[in-house]
Amino acid sequence: MNTKVRPNRAKLLISCPEKPGIISTVTNFLLEHKANIVHFDQHTTDPQAGIFFMRIEFDLEEYDATYKKIENDLDELARDYALDWQLSSNERRKRMAIFVSKADHCLTELIWRWKSNEIPVDIPMVISNHPDLKEMVEGYGIPFYHIPLTQDTKEEAEQKTVELLKGKVDFIVLARYMQILSPKFISHYPKQIINIHHSFLPAFVGANPYVRAFNRGVKLIGATAHYVTNDLDEGPIIEQDVQRINHRYTAADLKTAGRHVEKRVLAEAVSWHVEDKVLVHGNKTIVFA
Amino acid sequence: MNTKVRPNRAKLLISCPEKPGIISTVTNFLLEHKANIVHFDQHTTDPQAGIFFMRIEFDLEEYDATYKKIENDLDELARDYALDWQLSSNERRKRMAIFVSKADHCLTELIWRWKSNEIPVDIPMVISNHPDLKEMVEGYGIPFYHIPLTQDTKEEAEQKTVELLKGKVDFIVLARYMQILSPKFISHYPKQIINIHHSFLPAFVGANPYVRAFNRGVKLIGATAHYVTNDLDEGPIIEQDVQRINHRYTAADLKTAGRHVEKRVLAEAVSWHVEDKVLVHGNKTIVFA
Amino acid sequence: MNTKVRPNRAKLLISCPEKPGIISTVTNFLLEHKANIVHFDQHTTDPQAGIFFMRIEFDLEEYDATYKKIENDLDELARDYALDWQLSSNERRKRMAIFVSKADHCLTELIWRWKSNEIPVDIPMVISNHPDLKEMVEGYGIPFYHIPLTQDTKEEAEQKTVELLKGKVDFIVLARYMQILSPKFISHYPKQIINIHHSFLPAFVGANPYVRAFNRGVKLIGATAHYVTNDLDEGPIIEQDVQRINHRYTAADLKTAGRHVEKRVLAEAVSWHVEDKVLVHGNKTIVFA
Amino acid sequence: MNTKVRPNRAKLLISCPEKPGIISTVTNFLLEHKANIVHFDQHTTDPQAGIFFMRIEFDLEEYDATYKKIENDLDELARDYALDWQLSSNERRKRMAIFVSKADHCLTELIWRWKSNEIPVDIPMVISNHPDLKEMVEGYGIPFYHIPLTQDTKEEAEQKTVELLKGKVDFIVLARYMQILSPKFISHYPKQIINIHHSFLPAFVGANPYVRAFNRGVKLIGATAHYVTNDLDEGPIIEQDVQRINHRYTAADLKTAGRHVEKRVLAEAVSWHVEDKVLVHGNKTIVFA
Repeated sequence: MNTKVRPNRAKLLISCPEKPGIISTVTNFLLEHKANIVHFDQHTTDPQAGIFFMRIEFDLEEYDATYKKIENDLDELARDYALDWQLSSNERRKRMAIFVSKADHCLTELIWRWKSNEIPVDIPMVISNHPDLKEMVEGYGIPFYHIPLTQDTKEEAEQKTVELLKGKVDFIVLARYMQILSPKFISHYPKQIINIHHSFLPAFVGANPYVRAFNRGVKLIGATAHYVTNDLDEGPIIEQDVQRINHRYTAADLKTAGRHVEKRVLAEAVSWHVEDKVLVHGNKTIVFA
Repeated sequence: MNTKVRPNRAKLLISCPEKPGIISTVTNFLLEHKANIVHFDQHTTDPQAGIFFMRIEFDLEEYDATYKKIENDLDELARDYALDWQLSSNERRKRMAIFVSKADHCLTELIWRWKSNEIPVDIPMVISNHPDLKEMVEGYGIPFYHIPLTQDTKEEAEQKTVELLKGKVDFIVLARYMQILSPKFISHYPKQIINIHHSFLPAFVGANPYVRAFNRGVKLIGATAHYVTNDLDEGPIIEQDVQRINHRYTAADLKTAGRHVEKRVLAEAVSWHVEDKVLVHGNKTIVFA
Repeated sequence: MNTKVRPNRAKLLISCPEKPGIISTVTNFLLEHKANIVHFDQHTTDPQAGIFFMRIEFDLEEYDATYKKIENDLDELARDYALDWQLSSNERRKRMAIFVSKADHCLTELIWRWKSNEIPVDIPMVISNHPDLKEMVEGYGIPFYHIPLTQDTKEEAEQKTVELLKGKVDFIVLARYMQILSPKFISHYPKQIINIHHSFLPAFVGANPYVRAFNRGVKLIGATAHYVTNDLDEGPIIEQDVQRINHRYTAADLKTAGRHVEKRVLAEAVSWHVEDKVLVHGNKTIVFA
Repeated sequence: MNTKVRPNRAKLLISCPEKPGIISTVTNFLLEHKANIVHFDQHTTDPQAGIFFMRIEFDLEEYDATYKKIENDLDELARDYALDWQLSSNERRKRMAIFVSKADHCLTELIWRWKSNEIPVDIPMVISNHPDLKEMVEGYGIPFYHIPLTQDTKEEAEQKTVELLKGKVDFIVLARYMQILSPKFISHYPKQIINIHHSFLPAFVGANPYVRAFNRGVKLIGATAHYVTNDLDEGPIIEQDVQRINHRYTAADLKTAGRHVEKRVLAEAVSWHVEDKVLVHGNKTIVFA
């Protein structure tokens, strides 16, 4: 049986100011609620006065009876200990909207991992500012919405998008979506929008990065998946990877190689997000992978 | 300050049959002894009926007063819960003997990481069946013992080695030591001897592996660091890595490339062993790195 | 313009016993035929008495007039110099049959790279011993043939397959095709069948390799793409790669990770084969990538 | 026999504007001079009107008689074809000065690869603005010069350094040398000074890159080896690599991981430079590795 979809499994994420006994407190709490801990991860930014992060994956023998009770009792515990917490369960899959433009490599990889149940998620919709990928998406039985967008109609288009998403979607993946989202839009999904962009050593900030990387003769090209914040491409990094290239690669070949890194890195990041393995702390992430 | 050598830090490794509440029990125990948990890692082979592994790194405010008491009280706790445990502390560095033959690449890497305090260990001696590296080793102020060894004198030589090590050494690193240790010798240091050997995809078992890998035209060569058991090169794997090669590499070039992977992989494995990050379970390891 | 599909580009592969002046002879020949060399790669197993390998990519200004003439004149040159040679051109795409069983990860990757023109190939058919992937394949407009196969009907099924392929296919990719081809079948496509299989450090020969790799606690899993010969999984290696794993991976997780390496490695190998970048020498390959 | 030090082997590097027949011309020339080509590499930036690069490694049967003649005749050929060329031979090893400050990891790696003859080079001197590494360097029988340097004495110190190097050194490696060389100094060794610096995805330009990379939570850290030009850290890249890290790494741990990538990448780049495998074209390199 695929453990990713065990129905009676729950995941608890906690962050709080470091204080003695916090692990005991939480594990005692779970023990009292007859939760059987399967994975436990912890990280502290500073054992004296830092922030403490914890991820606990646990099985419930009588799921229906206890899950709700844990949720309620956590509320009380959280007040006493100043905990930020988030509880989720395999009973209810996360719902992911994918935003695309014309490039299909990231989309294809996400759909394949969804179909093969590697990423246990629901995909209620794909949204695009171009119609090109409509047929492909609908071929998988996923609703596709074409919301064209110009500089003038951006506010309106975003408003329409927000309405489309409302109540149907938990998080958004920008799978090479070539539009910049407004702060207002982002505020609806804080730490719930994942983006992918190319990365180089050293960085080439600004226009035509592949051409400039080509001109500098870089030997590696990379990709970075991150949560979207108002600072373009500057949000907390979830995952990165690189691919080796050489002087024979044309600027076009660099883009091809870039696509392969992008799809791999994005799919990995989405997978961890879906499994509640990523916590955000300021502008960085803790990934319990 | 280098956290690897914080004097008041201790590390507790525990393994036991899985049972509910084990995390609570141990973290409550540490809380009562005023231990401040810095890192906590856990793994279970099966949440229902498997083996449970735990590594806890903690700081003690009054080290001298409490460390000894924790050690004593753990003994009692262990009886009640059928725990296997191991407690160590930065107060007392591990003592590592290095066995070499003629090749110096792994030795050089270990010495450099020791000198730069990347691996916080003591090196009371280097032992070799050849005299070649004597001058180099002594240049670093490390005692060097040349114990020649033929098929006829092997038992005697091993006996001499055991006496040399007795009471002075906690674990042994075979840094390209080209002799097979007897089961009798190994029994003195169970799970405390680390070896490095080349690895290929696919494997070439038997003589002249580099020549045969060359003849097959492999595209990657690798190295595996593992604990030594009586099954030659079959003990629990600690770390592995590979390096990309191509058709231009001669069999000699493969060996050179192999040296670089070997020294990197061995140094990493030794580093984890020294920091008590490796637990052995049957013929595999859990590495909390 | 995608250089992979420049219509006036040709590729010449040559192998012959090493002799002085062979590079001059061939480049003079091409110069006389007004071929403009774009890439030149060379390898020798031994400059004194080895085998010499050469790959030349060149553009022809008047393709129609000169390509045929080069082909004819090469024939003569080859006799004089004992050359093995192969000439191909972007004018005529290679035709690839894909054999699959039930797993679709390799197939999906190949189709995506074909669709995005990363691999400039024609796919006249997909053949499977199971019907499962029929709908998916036909959705891309590719003919799908279901040829069931039991131990008893194997000869007959292979005969049927040979007839289906005849004159329509240049090479075959086994994209996780879970049947062993007979020597007779293989003899129809020497060095023209590419297979992918998992690889481990060290190797686990025989049944249930993933379970055994899991039990040994390997830290890397890999994949090997190779040409099929009569020695099962022992043919010339085209490409290999690995992926890092850890003790948290279940045996099922190992398989998932394995899929990602497999699809990447196979697609890379196929891409090089299509671009005539792979030469076979005995049981190894020279890859001019 | 180590082919890197075959005494009768020579290496010819050529660059010139692309024109038909250039490969024929040069290989015919070598054939006439009884040079047996062992490796041949070629690259063009554009087959129509680009720059053509060529590296030929060849053996001479009567080295003493022919090497000098080739050198002379090349001069004439070069005039006719507007070739830039460079001829070198294993008879005369390159001479490398190493500049260091206090960190010894890159220095140690270079010395080890020199001692084990992996990098066939002479090291006539190590120069440092600090005295710390004197004893270590002299222990290997290499002269060590301590040339202290303040902002006020920089010009004078560089002048002294230039005199020390004059006639004794072919190229310089900055093995974590923490001083910026003046344009005047650099002009003495164009494309003959190799530097190593850390690299991140994305880049952190300016002060305290490791701290800022830590604050952003990067998942990879890298290193770039490049030729030094007047634009600080902006010269042609020779080699790059990365190492995976995670949220557990402190800023100090990042530096440690960085050291390992730095030493590996620098040693690789130096090795290629010594074997004349690197050609510079504008601000990028062609590496025939």
